[in-house]
Amino acid sequence: MNFELSYIPDRPSKPRTTGLTMVMDKGLSVNEAHQFVESSGEFTDFIKLGFGTSMITNKLDQKLDIYKKSGLRPYFGGTLFEAFAIRNQIDSFRKFIDKYKVDLVEISDGSMSMPHEKKLEYIRHFSKQVTVISEVGSKQKGVYIPADQWVKMMKNELEAGSMKVIAEARESGTIGIYNSDGTANENLINAISSQINSSDVLWEAPNGKQQVWFIKIFGANVNLGNIAPNLVIPLECLRLGLRGDTFFDFLPDELKKQQQKESH
Amino acid sequence: MNFELSYIPDRPSKPRTTGLTMVMDKGLSVNEAHQFVESSGEFTDFIKLGFGTSMITNKLDQKLDIYKKSGLRPYFGGTLFEAFAIRNQIDSFRKFIDKYKVDLVEISDGSMSMPHEKKLEYIRHFSKQVTVISEVGSKQKGVYIPADQWVKMMKNELEAGSMKVIAEARESGTIGIYNSDGTANENLINAISSQINSSDVLWEAPNGKQQVWFIKIFGANVNLGNIAPNLVIPLECLRLGLRGDTFFDFLPDELKKQQQKESH
Amino acid sequence: MNFELSYIPDRPSKPRTTGLTMVMDKGLSVNEAHQFVESSGEFTDFIKLGFGTSMITNKLDQKLDIYKKSGLRPYFGGTLFEAFAIRNQIDSFRKFIDKYKVDLVEISDGSMSMPHEKKLEYIRHFSKQVTVISEVGSKQKGVYIPADQWVKMMKNELEAGSMKVIAEARESGTIGIYNSDGTANENLINAISSQINSSDVLWEAPNGKQQVWFIKIFGANVNLGNIAPNLVIPLECLRLGLRGDTFFDFLPDELKKQQQKESH
Repeated sequence: MNFELSYIPDRPSKPRTTGLTMVMDKGLSVNEAHQFVESSGEFTDFIKLGFGTSMITNKLDQKLDIYKKSGLRPYFGGTLFEAFAIRNQIDSFRKFIDKYKVDLVEISDGSMSMPHEKKLEYIRHFSKQVTVISEVGSKQKGVYIPADQWVKMMKNELEAGSMKVIAEARESGTIGIYNSDGTANENLINAISSQINSSDVLWEAPNGKQQVWFIKIFGANVNLGNIAPNLVIPLECLRLGLRGDTFFDFLPDELKKQQQKESH
Repeated sequence: MNFELSYIPDRPSKPRTTGLTMVMDKGLSVNEAHQFVESSGEFTDFIKLGFGTSMITNKLDQKLDIYKKSGLRPYFGGTLFEAFAIRNQIDSFRKFIDKYKVDLVEISDGSMSMPHEKKLEYIRHFSKQVTVISEVGSKQKGVYIPADQWVKMMKNELEAGSMKVIAEARESGTIGIYNSDGTANENLINAISSQINSSDVLWEAPNGKQQVWFIKIFGANVNLGNIAPNLVIPLECLRLGLRGDTFFDFLPDELKKQQQKESH
Repeated sequence: MNFELSYIPDRPSKPRTTGLTMVMDKGLSVNEAHQFVESSGEFTDFIKLGFGTSMITNKLDQKLDIYKKSGLRPYFGGTLFEAFAIRNQIDSFRKFIDKYKVDLVEISDGSMSMPHEKKLEYIRHFSKQVTVISEVGSKQKGVYIPADQWVKMMKNELEAGSMKVIAEARESGTIGIYNSDGTANENLINAISSQINSSDVLWEAPNGKQQVWFIKIFGANVNLGNIAPNLVIPLECLRLGLRGDTFFDFLPDELKKQQQKESH
């Protein structure tokens, strides 16, 4: 885009390694995928076919093709990996991703319990053939993981071969890195960001307020995930300071001062 | 679908009499209806053109055709029936459904008061020509119907000719069979399910948490309604145990035990 | 529409000056715009490309054409005007609207502070060439504007050339004319409606409950804005009394009495 507006933050062009937007597709049709890519493909890096939706997606191969041809990287939600894992059917999972030529895999343990060493083995194993992203945090209410353990798990998983670690929030944004009212769990997020390179973390942030919070703390190019398809453009506007909530965040002090002076 | 995954609950194929999903269409365009049917038609049994939307739907006949040709049964929301009823214009209503060749009719009294005998007459009358489903429960806050009256009305309506009775929740899911915070009114639901055959009831369950609750209590093939079009695939995943909330519900004990053993 | 139903309120046909519906487009694709216009164009007067979305809209000219050809008036969200204003780039803003042949402009000061006299100058200036609508109210929490100042600003802005004044609510509907829980700020709304001609005000009312509230107070043809594209048809049903919430609002007393008599 060739902005006529000054003071718009720089956004890296694709393929990006930072400033990533990960979208959650919960069952778009082929045509909807087309439309999404046309309007929002430029601003989307990863697209997750949420939980087990890919098992019941009509024309799955066509949809995946649309995403791939437009420079989006599709992958299957971690819950699907876990559904195969708990059934001792990881070979079938590998066949499934091979069949659909998906080169990005999420390894997670949000729905089931898994010894961490076993998760790390999966990461080491899959990262030999495909790009792995791994998710830390439980989907279950009441499962409490101390901050230092989050950090340790994330470090180990990056070391084992994960390209990015995902900080769990669910689609609802009320668990993991968020309190049950959806506000940020600042202690946990501070612990993570002080010890893990921020560009290595992809924060799930389904709600607008959560997106605003992360952009204000970590800047325009924070990695954000679990974005609904119709919120990608609004999120991009937040990143660019083109919305009320981040209107002042990327302006130089002189413009802010001039406004204050004029209006008082 | 040919699932590679074991322990996926059986779902009856269409036309189904149990495990029904009823969707609420609040104004999809013809193209959107096409897309919906392509992605979600297999998982949808009834599609309700919500409240009076059908009176202002552009290309209504085309939209109805799309649904019918794909094996979905479209019908007009009960509020439309009531809008004709309160105006003493039931003949016009009959002409309206004849004109559009709709063979499924909802008889309800959620917006207006109607002597129950009169409602039963409507059910008897319409069920001679078309399939009737009838709805019990008020849309109005503060209108309290005791549980034994719910049960009695449902029994009478089934006897009068209703194929299914619908338990009211509104689109918001905060009334009827739900408390005002959206949680299930368990006393009422227990009273109904202990006296009415579960397959004869279609529970309105617009919110994900409500859907999870019903699937956990009544199983994968509970009849659920007022599902938004973009939530049909997520709901089907819940029914199949392919989402976090119902991840363990259909697994055999041996797999659950194995997981617990490994992770402790 | 040729309604078979009696007692449906009259709605003016387009181009309307009252009973307006203003829609917020947060990033529809070209095809989605097509679909929207097909199903809901008849019920939509203004369509706002929300905040700065138009700066990153792919095929913006095509989308605008679709709206214009169908008799909708598209315009750019007030935040975009403000983004140019705070950067002292109003000339670029004018070029932008000229380039896209947009003849409706929103002048607002919801994200930034602006001396009111300066805002009035903008209104006077732009209203010489295009239609101006201006917005009163801050997007920021904690910025409190007394009711008499709202009224004064609205009067001045109408006098300066605004065709309509918009009462701010944000997309969330929790600020400006609403309390933080989304209920109507009745004192403020009363103050406005007692001193400003109701047809000159366009009330932002993103939530269904807010729409119901305004229709019950001001009638079927109240001007409402910030309507999501998929809520235009449900809103039109509310205006026409074809939904539970406004089911009785346009019925004559005789029909209401008849119903009460029958059911008791």
